[in-house]
Amino acid sequence: MPFEYLPPLLNSEKSKIVLLVMDGLGGLPLDPGGLTELETAQTPNMDNLAKDGILGQTIPIAPGITPGSGPAHLALFGYDPLVHAIGRGVLSAAGVGVHVGSGDVAARANFCTLDKEGNITDRRAGRIPNELSIPILEKLKSVQIPDVNVEVNLVKEYRFSVVMRGEGLNAALKDTDPQVTGVPPYKVEPTDPVAKRTADLFNKWVEEARKVLINEPTANGFTLRGFATDPGLQSYKESYGLNAACIAVYPMYRGVSRLVGMDVIEFDGEYPEDEFSTVKRIWNDYDFFFVHIKKTDSTGEDGNFDGKVHVIESVDKALPMLLELAPDVLIITGDHSTPAKMKSHSWHPVPFLLWAPNTVIPDHQNKFGERFCQRGGLGTFAALNTMPLALSHANRLNKYGA
Amino acid sequence: MPFEYLPPLLNSEKSKIVLLVMDGLGGLPLDPGGLTELETAQTPNMDNLAKDGILGQTIPIAPGITPGSGPAHLALFGYDPLVHAIGRGVLSAAGVGVHVGSGDVAARANFCTLDKEGNITDRRAGRIPNELSIPILEKLKSVQIPDVNVEVNLVKEYRFSVVMRGEGLNAALKDTDPQVTGVPPYKVEPTDPVAKRTADLFNKWVEEARKVLINEPTANGFTLRGFATDPGLQSYKESYGLNAACIAVYPMYRGVSRLVGMDVIEFDGEYPEDEFSTVKRIWNDYDFFFVHIKKTDSTGEDGNFDGKVHVIESVDKALPMLLELAPDVLIITGDHSTPAKMKSHSWHPVPFLLWAPNTVIPDHQNKFGERFCQRGGLGTFAALNTMPLALSHANRLNKYGA
Repeated sequence: MPFEYLPPLLNSEKSKIVLLVMDGLGGLPLDPGGLTELETAQTPNMDNLAKDGILGQTIPIAPGITPGSGPAHLALFGYDPLVHAIGRGVLSAAGVGVHVGSGDVAARANFCTLDKEGNITDRRAGRIPNELSIPILEKLKSVQIPDVNVEVNLVKEYRFSVVMRGEGLNAALKDTDPQVTGVPPYKVEPTDPVAKRTADLFNKWVEEARKVLINEPTANGFTLRGFATDPGLQSYKESYGLNAACIAVYPMYRGVSRLVGMDVIEFDGEYPEDEFSTVKRIWNDYDFFFVHIKKTDSTGEDGNFDGKVHVIESVDKALPMLLELAPDVLIITGDHSTPAKMKSHSWHPVPFLLWAPNTVIPDHQNKFGERFCQRGGLGTFAALNTMPLALSHANRLNKYGA
Repeated sequence: MPFEYLPPLLNSEKSKIVLLVMDGLGGLPLDPGGLTELETAQTPNMDNLAKDGILGQTIPIAPGITPGSGPAHLALFGYDPLVHAIGRGVLSAAGVGVHVGSGDVAARANFCTLDKEGNITDRRAGRIPNELSIPILEKLKSVQIPDVNVEVNLVKEYRFSVVMRGEGLNAALKDTDPQVTGVPPYKVEPTDPVAKRTADLFNKWVEEARKVLINEPTANGFTLRGFATDPGLQSYKESYGLNAACIAVYPMYRGVSRLVGMDVIEFDGEYPEDEFSTVKRIWNDYDFFFVHIKKTDSTGEDGNFDGKVHVIESVDKALPMLLELAPDVLIITGDHSTPAKMKSHSWHPVPFLLWAPNTVIPDHQNKFGERFCQRGGLGTFAALNTMPLALSHANRLNKYGA
């Protein structure tokens, strides 16, 4: 339960909320005295929203903490990532669009190279490229054992995802990666007796899988890590009374959205206008729309300052498509910062824009950018509070206490 | 205990603190581009205090949460309302100035109409007006049973408060309101065996009470809800070392103040100058003065923007009476927002002014208003922190740790 005090306050208002997340939105100036990516971008539409709305900046997880995308999105969705950990195996599966249901057990897998004695000589199997790992994974897909179903999917290069589905499974299992070469992968062992049978099943599957890999020159073995099951997050419907839709291109974000009970919408295309026209298409069917823009983050990770500016501008240009729908609340923010200068995620507070006709006090900030947000009327606050703010500005909450 | 780390830090300073609460102070502009009630009001005295003091804005309960007056005042007093819930029965009694002591059990009661079979035909007894319910309550006051004392008081129209006092009582009791018509009120039943005797006592009293109501045309029955006892809040004296006085017109606020151990001061009149002259009268007898102005909230609830502006101005006009007393710390704030535009309480952050000669850093904001407070030097903070800020600026706290 994200906020125990919220469900009793929910009313039957039919207002609509859009949460537009530009991944890694926050940035840094390349040089002292310079502007950030968002400050550099020409964003007349967002600036108008800033003028009529209210700004602030969010702390994604905790001050000074650089978040991964999974925890950062959990926070935006109202699930404290310091409390609700999504296991690595589940995140890995989510990242390739594979759902891990209640009772399923997921793990991250790495191909490795084994010598004749079965000892590891390369923990990443020479980092084999996708072209080589895809056909090997096809072989692995054929490996099945009684009583359970095992699904494998490529993540990237030597990394893949394994999900075991069946009755009575338990994820209390130890990693099989010894972290060093010269020894064999460990057997799967339970950390709790309740997972003994699941360990046996995984060991059986590993044994069968090894047989089909025996003639592979480099990827003739693999290790398993981060065994985990469905984190059992309460759904958006239960938590907030919202029928929620996810409009995202990348599997990882679709996966995390599915874990909180959003419907993941299928659509063609990958540009902001493709996403916004999808919102339009399903507008009457949902109350809440999570729209995810990935390329602000990818360009930031690439150190491509101008590219990130361009992505922000392309979102701004398409924004009238969203505004025409007349949402009751529109929030534009990021899940974390990805300054092109750092070529990585960072801990910096994230620009936050809340627009809601008639229910905000405009704060005299008339441009969307880091330093306007620092002075915004919402102040500096935990990203975790995004959902309560969205619900209240959409008039969806009754009074607490008399 | 509101703040476990505070009591060991309290020193013997004799400074004086005034907490002036304008109920529902925060507002909204009526139209885009307009001003809020507080921004509209001519408040030269508060503006002077803003200039010499420091501003901020408070979150009453949690971001996005619209508070009732009870929880909102608890927060201002330093008791987290998400932890310390005051039961509805106790709040209802407090609302009519009736104290619920340790071991007493209070409930909210509604008159209802019963048919010959004892089934409810109207859950609110036709919403009978005060003129009719007052004499009926007089009859109920005469109904007493052995071992306990039962106090009844009119709240409004068909609503009244019931408090049972005696030894060994327990409030673990179910509501008797079936929430529908066509069935009789439930018997009082315990939710915990420890409350069995209390349930029996209430049922006995209800039985006797029904006899005196038997010939009433509409209010011939009643239901009981929200059984609760004294929440056992630690007193201001224990928590903060303060001899505290409450100067408030409305019973509800007097009641909540009494629950935290304030002395509730009797006085004539209902205007700000009546309250401020009361503060003057008792100035030498107390360290802390909670002064409550109700009409900012009532005018807000009525949607009377100009009326709320006028109330704020009347407080400002009388303010020199308080300033002449030379308090060491003067805080002017609200318990929550009540924008006239919304005609209701709201979740918006609340303007906060802290004036303390020589112990604040003035923040270059020279007017008291929402948008000045958004940019204030205290930032955006939980209302729960009001008391520690008051104590520190009054030099009443020693250093924490060496």
